[in-house]
Formats: sequence, C-alpha cells, structure tokens
Amino acid sequence: AQEDLLLAAAYVYDAQYNRNIPFETSPQAVRLYYLYNHWTMQAATYFFIFVDLFLAVFEDPAVYPLPFLATSLVEVLCLLVFFSRLVHFAKVTPRNVFWKDTKNICIMIAILVTLIDLIIYGALKISNINSIRWSRFLRPIFLINFAESRQIRRVFRSIRNTLPEITYVFLLFMFSVLMFSLMALKLFGDRNLRTVEGSPYFTNYLEIVFDLYVLVTTANSPDVMMPAFDFSWWYSLFFITYVVINTYLFMSVFLAVVYNNYRKHLKNEIRKLAYMKRHKMIEAFNILKVKEGTEYVVQEAQWKELVKLVAPDISTSHRELLLRVSDEEQKGYVDKKSFVRLADLLNIQVIAMRIQTHPLEHWIPHVYNSAVSLFIRSMVQHKGFVWTYDVIILINAVFIALDEENPLISYAEWVFLSLYILEILLKVYTYEPRAFFAKTQFWNWFDTSIIIAALIATILNTSLKSASQYNSQQVLDIVFILRVLRLIRIVDSIQRFRVIMNTLINIVPTMLTFGGLALVVYYMFAIIGMELFQGKIQFFPRNSTAHHALECGNPALKDSLFARAKYCKNNFNDITSSFVVLMELTVVNQWHDILSAAKLYFIAFHIVVVIMIINILIAFILEAFFVEY
Amino acid sequence: AQEDLLLAAAYVYDAQYNRNIPFETSPQAVRLYYLYNHWTMQAATYFFIFVDLFLAVFEDPAVYPLPFLATSLVEVLCLLVFFSRLVHFAKVTPRNVFWKDTKNICIMIAILVTLIDLIIYGALKISNINSIRWSRFLRPIFLINFAESRQIRRVFRSIRNTLPEITYVFLLFMFSVLMFSLMALKLFGDRNLRTVEGSPYFTNYLEIVFDLYVLVTTANSPDVMMPAFDFSWWYSLFFITYVVINTYLFMSVFLAVVYNNYRKHLKNEIRKLAYMKRHKMIEAFNILKVKEGTEYVVQEAQWKELVKLVAPDISTSHRELLLRVSDEEQKGYVDKKSFVRLADLLNIQVIAMRIQTHPLEHWIPHVYNSAVSLFIRSMVQHKGFVWTYDVIILINAVFIALDEENPLISYAEWVFLSLYILEILLKVYTYEPRAFFAKTQFWNWFDTSIIIAALIATILNTSLKSASQYNSQQVLDIVFILRVLRLIRIVDSIQRFRVIMNTLINIVPTMLTFGGLALVVYYMFAIIGMELFQGKIQFFPRNSTAHHALECGNPALKDSLFARAKYCKNNFNDITSSFVVLMELTVVNQWHDILSAAKLYFIAFHIVVVIMIINILIAFILEAFFVEY
Ligand code: NA
Repeated sequence: AQEDLLLAAAYVYDAQYNRNIPFETSPQAVRLYYLYNHWTMQAATYFFIFVDLFLAVFEDPAVYPLPFLATSLVEVLCLLVFFSRLVHFAKVTPRNVFWKDTKNICIMIAILVTLIDLIIYGALKISNINSIRWSRFLRPIFLINFAESRQIRRVFRSIRNTLPEITYVFLLFMFSVLMFSLMALKLFGDRNLRTVEGSPYFTNYLEIVFDLYVLVTTANSPDVMMPAFDFSWWYSLFFITYVVINTYLFMSVFLAVVYNNYRKHLKNEIRKLAYMKRHKMIEAFNILKVKEGTEYVVQEAQWKELVKLVAPDISTSHRELLLRVSDEEQKGYVDKKSFVRLADLLNIQVIAMRIQTHPLEHWIPHVYNSAVSLFIRSMVQHKGFVWTYDVIILINAVFIALDEENPLISYAEWVFLSLYILEILLKVYTYEPRAFFAKTQFWNWFDTSIIIAALIATILNTSLKSASQYNSQQVLDIVFILRVLRLIRIVDSIQRFRVIMNTLINIVPTMLTFGGLALVVYYMFAIIGMELFQGKIQFFPRNSTAHHALECGNPALKDSLFARAKYCKNNFNDITSSFVVLMELTVVNQWHDILSAAKLYFIAFHIVVVIMIINILIAFILEAFFVEY
Repeated sequence: AQEDLLLAAAYVYDAQYNRNIPFETSPQAVRLYYLYNHWTMQAATYFFIFVDLFLAVFEDPAVYPLPFLATSLVEVLCLLVFFSRLVHFAKVTPRNVFWKDTKNICIMIAILVTLIDLIIYGALKISNINSIRWSRFLRPIFLINFAESRQIRRVFRSIRNTLPEITYVFLLFMFSVLMFSLMALKLFGDRNLRTVEGSPYFTNYLEIVFDLYVLVTTANSPDVMMPAFDFSWWYSLFFITYVVINTYLFMSVFLAVVYNNYRKHLKNEIRKLAYMKRHKMIEAFNILKVKEGTEYVVQEAQWKELVKLVAPDISTSHRELLLRVSDEEQKGYVDKKSFVRLADLLNIQVIAMRIQTHPLEHWIPHVYNSAVSLFIRSMVQHKGFVWTYDVIILINAVFIALDEENPLISYAEWVFLSLYILEILLKVYTYEPRAFFAKTQFWNWFDTSIIIAALIATILNTSLKSASQYNSQQVLDIVFILRVLRLIRIVDSIQRFRVIMNTLINIVPTMLTFGGLALVVYYMFAIIGMELFQGKIQFFPRNSTAHHALECGNPALKDSLFARAKYCKNNFNDITSSFVVLMELTVVNQWHDILSAAKLYFIAFHIVVVIMIINILIAFILEAFFVEY
C-alpha cells in the first residue's frame, strides 16, 4: 500500500508541476524517479550545466587563463555528471520511450562529440599543434535538453512552428530588398557619386544589397542616403519608401507573425497541459480507488497520507481545509471529480491571515501600550510618515548628486542611512514583523535588504579607508549603486506607479525563460564568433605606444570608421567581450562598422536574434502585459 | 412623398457609410445636406486643404519661392473655401449642435488666427520688417476637423484616450532614466574618462540624462559605452542592464499600452457605429412606414424608389436580388427587421459571375475557334506559360543589372518589352477581357499599367535621345523604376507569397489613415522646426569653395561629427528638407548628431512620433494582420 501511495503521489506531483515524464511503475523505478526529481539532483544538474558553460571564461581565448588540463578535467567531470543523469533517467523511463526521445539522443551525441573534440584537441596540443575547440558551441544543448528546462524547450518548439511562416515573409522581404537594390543600382550607379569616405557610391550590386539590408535596421541612416540626397532631394523619396516598406511594414509583419504564432502555440500548450494534468490525476485515482456503494472513491485516510507525501510542508489546518473542499459533504471519502482537482488545489497559495499580536505586546504589554508607544505607533501609521520619508528620499537624491569629496556630504550619507534604518525599525515596531516580512511584501524586503547591504558596504568602505587609506573602487561602486537603488522606493508611494511596477515584477518569471533562451543563442554565437575572429582586433589602453595601437593592432583598420570611433575593445578575444559585442549587434547600431569584415555572421545574427528572438521577447511582454494589466 | 423619400434616403446613405452628421429635416436642409455630401464638394474641400498645406513649398523659406502676394492670395482663397464650407455645414446642422461641436470652433479659430497672422505679417512686410508666419503649423487642423476626415479624428481620439496611461508609464520610464543617470554620474563622474572627441565623460548630470535618453533609442550605441567599457568590462553590465530595461522592456510596455488601448477603443467605436447605423435605419423606416395588418412595413414600391435614390448605379437585377432577400416571402412589403438590414446589404459587393463568351467568339467565331486559335488558347492556359514567363522575368532581372551602355543590352530591353506586351495580348485573347480587367484582378491591372507606362517612357526616352541627343534623367529614372517594378510579378506566381502580398495590400486603407495622421504631425513639427532652425545650417555642393563650406556655413560646427559626416543637407531650410530630417529623426539613428543643438525639440519629437505614432502604426499593422492573415 505504501508503494501504491508513492506511485500515486508521483502522479499527483507531476500533475501539480506540469511535468510530463513517462516513468516505469515498478516500486524500484518509482523510488528512483523520486530521487531523479529531488531538488538537490536538479540543482546539481543545473550547477554543472552552468559550470560547463562558464568554462569558456577560462579556456583559450580566456578572460582568466587556466591550463588546458584543468579546464578539460572539469569538462570531463561535467560530461560524467550529464551522462550519469542520463543513465538515471534511462532507469526511470521505459526503454522504448527513452530511445525515441530526441532530447536524450541530443545529449548523448553532444557528450560523445565533446569527448572526441577534447581528445583530438588534447592530442594535438601535446604535439604542439594549435587547433580549435569546435564542439564548444554545443554546450547550450545541455541547458536546453535536460528535463528541467521545459519552458525554454517550449519556446524553441514555438520558434520551430513559426519558422515556415517566418521563412515565407523573410523571402518576400529579401525579394523586396533585392528589388530596391536593383533600382538603386540603376538610379545611382552611373552618377559618379562618392560616399563620405570617398569610395564610389552604389556601384556594386552585392554591396548595395548589404547597405540596404543594414538600412532596414536603420543603423546606417542617414549616411547611406546622404550622397543621393545631396545630389537631388527627390532621391530621398527612394529611401523613405524603402524604410517605410522594409523597416516599418516588414518588421511589423515579422512581429505580427511571431506574436500570432506565439499566442496560437500558447493556447495549444495550455490545452495539452490541462489534458495531461487530468490524465495523471486519473492515474493516481485509479491506484488508490476503492468501491464505495456504486462509485469508486478514495478513502479519507488514504487521501491524507497522499497529501502528506505530496506536500509534506503544509500545515495540518491547511490540509484539513483541502479535505473540506474535496469532501464537502463530509462523507469520509473523496470522489473522482474532487480528487482530480487536488493538483490545482495544491497550487493555490493559502495565506494565513490571522491578525497576530505584536511579539512586543506579548512580552512587554505595559511598555508597548504606553502613551508614548501608542503615539509612535499612530505616527508611523499616519500618511504623513510616508510623505516625510518621500521628502527625505528627494533630498537624499540631491545629496547623492553632489560632490562626494565634500566632508559635509559624506557625513550626510550617515544621517540618511540612520534615517532609513530608523524607518525600518519603527515599522517593525509598529507592524507585526511576520506580516511585515511576508513573502508577498516585495517592497519591504527590497527596502530592508538594500538598506542593510548599504550599511554593510558603507561600514566596509569607511573602515577600509581609515585603516589602510585604500579606497576600494569595487566596494565604493556597490555603495553608489545601492544608494541610488534606495531611491526607487519613492515609486511605491504613488498608486498608479505601483500598479505598473507590479505588472513589471510579475513579468519577471517569463523574462527568466527568455533569459535562458537568449543565453543559449548568445552563447552559440559568442563561441562561433570567438573561433572565427579572435585576435583580429586588439585593445590597447589610451596613450599606448604599441605598434598599430591606433588601428586596434590591425593595419587593415587604418583610417577605418571602426578605429576612428575607438571601438577596439569591441572584439571577440574572450567570452565576455563577445557577449558585449553581441549585445551591441542586438541593438543594431553601428553594427556595420563593428563587424564590417563579417557580413554573413552578422546577417545570420540579425535574422536569428533581432527578427526572431527580440520579436519573441516583445510578444512575451505584450501577452504578459495584456494578462496582467 | 418625394421629400420623405429624400430624407429617408439621406438616413440610409449615412447608415451605409457610417456618417454621423445630425442634420435638419426640413426639405430645404435635406437638399443642402445632399449638396454638402456630394463628392465634388468633398473633393473640392480636400483639394483646397492640400493646396493650403502645399503653400509651405512656396512660402519663405521656400523650395520654389513665390512672392508673398501670390501665396497670401491663395491662402485667403483657401480660407474663404473653408469658411463657406463651414457656413454650408451650419445651414445643414441644427444650430445648437453646430455651436457645441469643437470641430467647428477649431476651424473658425484657425481661420481667424490665420487671417490675423496674415495681416500682421503683410503689414510688417510692407514696413520691411521680417517676422514669422507663426500660424502656419495650425494648417493641419483643417485636415483633421473637416467632416470627411473621420478616420484621422478617430485615431486622435484614440491617442487622447491612451494619454493618461502612457503618461504614467512615461513618468516611470523617465524616473528610471534619471536613476540610471544618477548611478552613471556616481560611477563614472570621478574617473577622468574622456569621450572619443576628448571631452569629459559623464561629468554633467543633465548631459548624462540626455545621453542615456538617446541610448534608449540605441542611436549612440556603442559610443556612449566605450569609455567606461575600455576602463573595465564590468561597466558594460551597467549599459546592458540599462538597454534591457529601458529600450526593450519599457519600449515594449509602451507598445503594449498603445496596442491595448487601440483594441479597446476600436471595439467601442465599432459598437457605437453599429448602434448609430441601426438608429438611422429605424429613422428612415419610421418616415416611410405604413400600417399593414398589425405591423408597420414599407411598401415594395416605396422601397424600390428608396434604393434607386440611395444606390443609383446598381443594376436592376441586383436591386431585384436585394428585394428578394428583404422580402423573402414575397408579401409585397418589407418589414422593419429586414429594412434595417438594408444598409449592410448595400455594402455587399455582388460580383456578376456570368460566364461571358469572349467578344471575339461573338464576332469571328470561325477564326477564334480554329485549330490554331484553340492551340494558342490552351497554350496560354497551360501552367508552362506562367513558368516560361517567370524564367523570362529572371533573365530580365539579370539584364537590368548589366551595363546600360552596351547596345546589345539596350536592344534586349525592347525584346523583353515586346515579350511582356505579347503576354498581355495573349491573355486578353484567351480570357474574357471584362473578367481579366475586373476590379478584383489587382495583378492584371498592375502588370498592364506598368508595361504600358514602361512602353511610353521607353519610347519617349528613345525619341528624346535620337532627336536631340538629350538624355532626360527624369524619364530615364522612371524607365528604370518601371523596369524593376515589372519584376514584382514573379511574386504572384507563388501561392504563399500571394497570400502575404494580399494581406499587405489589404492593409493599405488602414495605412492611408495612418498616412494622414503622420502628415498632420510631421507638418506641424516641420513648420515649427523651420521657424526655429532655418538658415542655421547651409548645404554647399561638393568641391564648393564658399566660406565655411566644410562646416555647413556655420563656424560653430567646425570639427563636429555633423560636419564630418557631411550631414549639411539635413537642415530645416525648406519644407522638403524638414520632412526628410523628420524622417531621419523617426528612425532614430544619429539623431543626436543631426540635431545636437535642439535637444528639447528632439525629445518632444521622439515622444510624439516614436513612442506614440510609430506604436500606433505597429498596432494598426498587428491588428490588420491578425484579422487578415
Ligand atoms: Na539605430
């Protein structure tokens, strides 16, 4: 019976968290399944996934170089963890399901390929031949394909479904770009016009195509138009028509296609999830059911045991409440219909809203209810208290902007810090501390942690300064940031702002999924970019006297816009620089200058990130906003 | 009875075209109302509105200068037309309605203000004092407020409704920008960093705010980040966080708010329109109703007279069809329920799909049905015919890209032109011409007009060339454009492209409304920009030896990015240049360089056009696409 209960609890648990892993029902497999889903195992998997991704910081070309032996040992360790996780999964899930699942095949191939690459690279390194760790861009596959990353996989599925439609629109869009380029060639090619740099203007078809593609992102506007516009203002109409059609119309159509598909896909997913949830709850019911009169039911005792297993940390009163809802007529058993609802019931947060007395009132009632104390408490609860602190925040903002070197200002900082600490103490004195620091009180948590962190950082900074005359820039930076963050509080005082802020905060979980997706794509592009372009461009500090320092160490960049704008640090020489460059390419400004040598890499990045990923982000936000606001 | 019919027809007509003008019901007023709505009167009003707007081309600072006397006389004429149109409207509509309508008050004030401005300007001009025609930015008021521009007014209403919500989000956004600026000041202000131009980096709070505001539009990325990034790559995190929050998150929230409001507003408008339509049809019914047994009805004869009045150009068979639908049981009268539906019935396009015989078959059946003719016709209907011409188009594209000077290429153009003409002739020979050129056959119309225009332009160009050795650049440009446009046809051969193209074509009417809106906003900003900035920057042709030619005639611009990028023609010296500059500001690239002296004008333009108007455009397209696709 205990084994039946465990199996049923596994089904309920899966239903509650929308998990869709088919598992063997033998007692041993169920126990292994519990282990597989234990949070420590999941956390460990994620930890090693991120260690694996993070290796790029230490591998050649490295931010912080480590010997190949060290990084390769860590990588092998990661692969071992992934492999054992996979073996564990294979023990849990039926054999035929396991081998049919592309996720598992992907992981196995990725492990194998990485091992082969490691061996080849190591062997070549021993023979002093430098090669490329070409398999590294596969690492995000582990992030996508381990069972915990359901949300990210869902987005990838959504992208795959959007692909055919997007492709047709994209082809039409490219057709339009090619047509306009042909027109540009005919209109401007024979005019002997020159660009600002003095090169011939619009004479080569492929270059025109690239220039006009860049114009879609508006990155080279108005430069690309100026020679023609200088020649005759009529020609500006050509470019305006181009921008209206290709930037505004087509880019909006891309958004429309992605958003439309996202909504459609989301609806399907939700329908499927609801079906799966119901299916699993019925499975659990069928395990525990007994016949009671004409219908099958689950006995109250069994039901309670099940709930204890599924949700061990809920209170007895909460469990009784759930039973009341599930067995409304108190018949001593739960019928099928009520049982199926259990997964949803468990997901409802029950907030115990008992009006608790303040601990101080409990310990020292005389003092806490004295006239002075009552006055303080009513003062804190008064609206004027909030307003006073709003004014203090505003004055604080002015002081922050003033010069730090002035001793009066740096003294004032202590005053403000004391005032904020006093505020928190007063509030905790007045309001019940457990209510004040409840999970839902985001702003109280925010305030308190910012103030405490600022207090610690400021003390640390002052003691460092007085002890060793050493002004740690890092600590000081953190102090500054915390100081400014403190000001955000003022937003919370205005009802309308609070509504918008709450909407934004509620978007965060969706944004995290998006962050995972962005990480995958960025990582792949960053690794490929590093392998292709590392060392091509070098950064030299200001006033460096190194050879070719002004041309970013590359004679080919002499007099280029890139070198003139001092973009030398925009390179692919390590993983952090690569990420920064990719971020710059994402906002598509000056990207044609940043990567002028790598047009194809570029266009690929633009199609994947700006046309697909950013539109998915906007679709995310639009949908989340419509639901929340 | 005829007067009753006219009144009822006016109601039906208004219901059919969703017109909401309350009019007096006296016979004379109804007749005036008909005149008011006559298309010639409406066309005349629009004509004078556009003449009035177009005056900016000829007024100082002019593209084509005309004496003040000429432009002011035309303007007075326009104002007279507007005034008489208003008087006409006052005769039609009840007096109290007229004076309550802000539209009319707006027009009157605009007329008055313009007259005063004209008189003052003229008087000063006579005394040789140069002043400003400050009332000119009011001109779009006539475009907005005349009764025909319902759609544009609807969008403006929608903007007004969105304003409160947008304002709160905008304030929060500005708060975020101010916070980040404060952080930037603390983090980078004391570092002695320098920008590329050598000026101090992030030391002045207001300048930081502006720089970071520009970064929201991504226009100064990555330049604004480079000094901090060069100092330490950690600081790139500051800018990445900034861009994610302010560019991606907030800009998407703006879109969400605008789009959400647009949808809500649209729903309300549609509901209101449906109510008004029904209301008007009931008014019409009440005028014509007679008692038939227990219910009120409209007699068949009356009904037919009414339809003849409302839709004079529909065929008798079409009218009979409408009667059949409205009087299904052929009782000789139309009841209230059926009568109310008439407005919608009239809007349904009935396409007479009779399979007509080809006129040639009628005239010369022997020839048309001969073996050769049948062979030709089956050939044209064959799929291979389309494919052949697709191949011809592709070859043509290659020829267009090749050098024009080669006589063989220019001879080939004649071959292609003949081939296209042959194709159209063959199609008209095979398919029934009236069906081929039906209203719905967009592509046939497109092809034929492009080919005929290209034929005319090419002949014109060749004869000009052979007659006078003069190669008219304008004609040649048109020939080139037409030649490339011809290639668009290939899109029509592929089913999936055709679907997308049709969606895009169906968006056109919505885009026209948007074009009106954009015209209003651009015109106002252009006029204000011209008054503020005219003459500040001058354009000199390449190799000009004029004084300060390299600094756009303005010594203050020496060594500026603006002058170095040769942006001199981006000025407000006339209306066309102003429009081009505003277009460049709309795509927000290099805008901080283009208008560095006029930061406030700029931010205002960005808020109005990019945050409001462009988001409305995207909302338009999204909604249209969801409905169509
Ligand atoms: Na840009």
